[in-house]
Amino acid sequence: MKKIIILLSLSFLIFSCNQKTDKKENPKLLSKAEKTDSTHIKTIFNSALTEGKSYEWLRDLTTNIGGRLSGSPEAQKAVEWGEKLMKEVGLDSVWLQPVMVPHWVRGEKEVATYTTNGIQKNVPICALGFSVATPNSGVLAEVIEVKSLEEAKALGSKMEGKIVFFNRPFDDTLINTFKAYGGCVDQRVRGAAICGEFGAKGVIVRSMTNSIDDYPHTGTMSYGDLPTEKHIPTAAISSKAANILSDDLQKNPNLKFYFKQSCKTLPDAPSFNVVGEIKGAETPENIFVVGGHLDSWDLGEGAHDDGTGIVQSLEVAYLFKKNNIKPKNTIRIVFFMNEENGTRGAKKYAELATLHKENHIGGLESDAGGHTPRGFSIDANSVNTKLLQSWKKLLSPYGLHDLDKGGSGADISPLKGENVTLVGYRPDSQRYFDYHHTSRDTFDKVNKRELVLGSASMASIVYLMDKYLYSNSPLKP
Amino acid sequence: MKKIIILLSLSFLIFSCNQKTDKKENPKLLSKAEKTDSTHIKTIFNSALTEGKSYEWLRDLTTNIGGRLSGSPEAQKAVEWGEKLMKEVGLDSVWLQPVMVPHWVRGEKEVATYTTNGIQKNVPICALGFSVATPNSGVLAEVIEVKSLEEAKALGSKMEGKIVFFNRPFDDTLINTFKAYGGCVDQRVRGAAICGEFGAKGVIVRSMTNSIDDYPHTGTMSYGDLPTEKHIPTAAISSKAANILSDDLQKNPNLKFYFKQSCKTLPDAPSFNVVGEIKGAETPENIFVVGGHLDSWDLGEGAHDDGTGIVQSLEVAYLFKKNNIKPKNTIRIVFFMNEENGTRGAKKYAELATLHKENHIGGLESDAGGHTPRGFSIDANSVNTKLLQSWKKLLSPYGLHDLDKGGSGADISPLKGENVTLVGYRPDSQRYFDYHHTSRDTFDKVNKRELVLGSASMASIVYLMDKYLYSNSPLKP
Repeated sequence: MKKIIILLSLSFLIFSCNQKTDKKENPKLLSKAEKTDSTHIKTIFNSALTEGKSYEWLRDLTTNIGGRLSGSPEAQKAVEWGEKLMKEVGLDSVWLQPVMVPHWVRGEKEVATYTTNGIQKNVPICALGFSVATPNSGVLAEVIEVKSLEEAKALGSKMEGKIVFFNRPFDDTLINTFKAYGGCVDQRVRGAAICGEFGAKGVIVRSMTNSIDDYPHTGTMSYGDLPTEKHIPTAAISSKAANILSDDLQKNPNLKFYFKQSCKTLPDAPSFNVVGEIKGAETPENIFVVGGHLDSWDLGEGAHDDGTGIVQSLEVAYLFKKNNIKPKNTIRIVFFMNEENGTRGAKKYAELATLHKENHIGGLESDAGGHTPRGFSIDANSVNTKLLQSWKKLLSPYGLHDLDKGGSGADISPLKGENVTLVGYRPDSQRYFDYHHTSRDTFDKVNKRELVLGSASMASIVYLMDKYLYSNSPLKP
Repeated sequence: MKKIIILLSLSFLIFSCNQKTDKKENPKLLSKAEKTDSTHIKTIFNSALTEGKSYEWLRDLTTNIGGRLSGSPEAQKAVEWGEKLMKEVGLDSVWLQPVMVPHWVRGEKEVATYTTNGIQKNVPICALGFSVATPNSGVLAEVIEVKSLEEAKALGSKMEGKIVFFNRPFDDTLINTFKAYGGCVDQRVRGAAICGEFGAKGVIVRSMTNSIDDYPHTGTMSYGDLPTEKHIPTAAISSKAANILSDDLQKNPNLKFYFKQSCKTLPDAPSFNVVGEIKGAETPENIFVVGGHLDSWDLGEGAHDDGTGIVQSLEVAYLFKKNNIKPKNTIRIVFFMNEENGTRGAKKYAELATLHKENHIGGLESDAGGHTPRGFSIDANSVNTKLLQSWKKLLSPYGLHDLDKGGSGADISPLKGENVTLVGYRPDSQRYFDYHHTSRDTFDKVNKRELVLGSASMASIVYLMDKYLYSNSPLKP
């Protein structure tokens, strides 16, 4: 027993002594200004981790309102929720920007099935946004599997009367899963436009995910310039079902696939961007936008896409106010409407900014999920890119190592300009496409610490950009 | 409609163009040797991400065997599972190292309750490892809440006949949650030894977690040198229950807390470390150990603690073999037994290494969960520490930025020596203490990509250490 005690104590001591200390930048390597910044950033993180509100805001948005597709009653509730919350946080002014949005509705739950070797298989399926419905009796046809738009085009009239099945999977060797998504999503967006042209009866697409599971992933599609009479129904099937169907087609190339969906596009509906701001203390005419999108797909609760971006954006303002950080420039929080199927809110925001001759000096968007922070991608001129990258030693103690050039996000991109510094928040991407656009994108998939660390990361870079960006920019008066 | 189409296409294009490319080290900045290493590391990652086995191994271990506390039938099954699997992977030799382990059993499910303001509250509770049972009738006593061992000691005889309640929470401002754990776990390990000395009737401890929830966290404790007759029962209550109890004690300091547990320590039981190796091609007498621990607590399935470390360790060997990487030195995979309550396996392994005059040049341990990779902590002399840190440009494209000095792990620490380079794998820590030592530590909490990225990270650093470490070490012949 004595031995156990000694061993236990030893084990405990080893454990205690071996804990990696929280990493801090070496104070000796920091200038006086950097030390001040380091202290402010630490305050922001401490505040987020101990008194952050975003997790409870997200619980409210996702579980009490839920999925909020543009034009839906839930999207309208989310607008009202956002306006009320911005006022509660005490922004200097809060307003709504009216915008007409597409109004697509899913209708009844979709059905898909086929029989092979006498066994009937039910396929998890969901219509893609903007797809037309099948006839009431559904579509029943043989299936041609392809791996690319080019392969489909090459089929030409051979696809007439068939269902074309796009089955190019994610490239799992890409560390950044967004890159794998970017390498596959053309199938979902453009498959039906190409196959409608050649008289296919329908298009089914492998879900956009690294995961092999039973959850179909919806998402937007476009018929492009195709005349209405050539629009064909299109839907996504789960990745597991795609693998099974592909195997079954090898054994039985003439099997007939059946699917039925009743979705439709209604006339455009009125909606809003929700906007609030903290007025700049020195140059209020210069505006820095922080935002995410308020709409979401209808299958889940819109938690990681993009409830997290919404609550993190507002928490940037909350953290500024809570810690009495008075920005030099105006910090404007925007809950953009309709990112998922139209980006009408983004376009309206940019249009009004031009109309009102607003001077946007930069923007930050959070629309890559609420997972653990990794960094930011920077869309800026080379001077400002280098400036942002010079903050690495201030940001890396918080796991923010990635400060590469790259895109910012669909909602702030229309503000792009030579002297506008746009930044995208980049959390870890590994789990994002497990949930993206599915019924699994729910509140329980979000970790509170990961979420608020994101808010603090965003507030920290906004603090630095507000302090240094304008003064170092060619825009300087 | 035309506008929608254009916007959709635009949005899609922006998205496609804005995707951050997978980061690669700039080839111009790499030496010829580094380019070779970079290629090998990429091969390792590609292989893990497309043909890795660890996820299915983990499913088998956690769902078919489950929790496997030292001395239990499940621990024995895990030994047989591990031996069989190592042979299947085709290691050059596989053997078992007999070791006697402590054998503590939980007994019946614990019960805790108290009544305040006429309302009876049931408290989620679990006995701590090595705790004695309560009497059959349980323990009923008033509660004194303290925040530290020092505060408890200062109570002295005031605690006689009382239950002492240790309630110092995690410091949520620490970015690395292991540091928060290290700052609190003394309450769990040593609380009962201190309070038993002064005649307390029992000790309850706030669970070791950042999360506020209903899941109690077990873990080891020690009575130290306290005579057996002073051993008092001790248990952990959930963090949410701890907050509620603390509030209730403010209002009603005389409330009586009741708990009952029937755990006991049986005589030591026979068990095994499971060991297998790939013989070194050039200097097989030099051994590099890679491992995790096979035992786990009994409440969950031992998924993140430490099933992930077990399967990742074996996957290092699998990736070497699959990609025909022939190590210069011997790579030995060890599934250590009894890390959780005794580290007997670690001690036995080190004892046998000394007995057999084995030359251990280094070790790598994975026992910090299976989350997304962040880096490694290095316990080595300054020359080798710098060498490992010089590999940052090879490792950072995979999210491995943290290469700080720090502890390695409880199972390989006994091998420590001036010329032995010990490394701990360090995944992201944010979610770890949501699951650690609870019924929630189950297979479904592990993400496949995060797991295999860990295996590849580990295999990559083993590849580099095997290639460079010995040749740069004072041990060089």
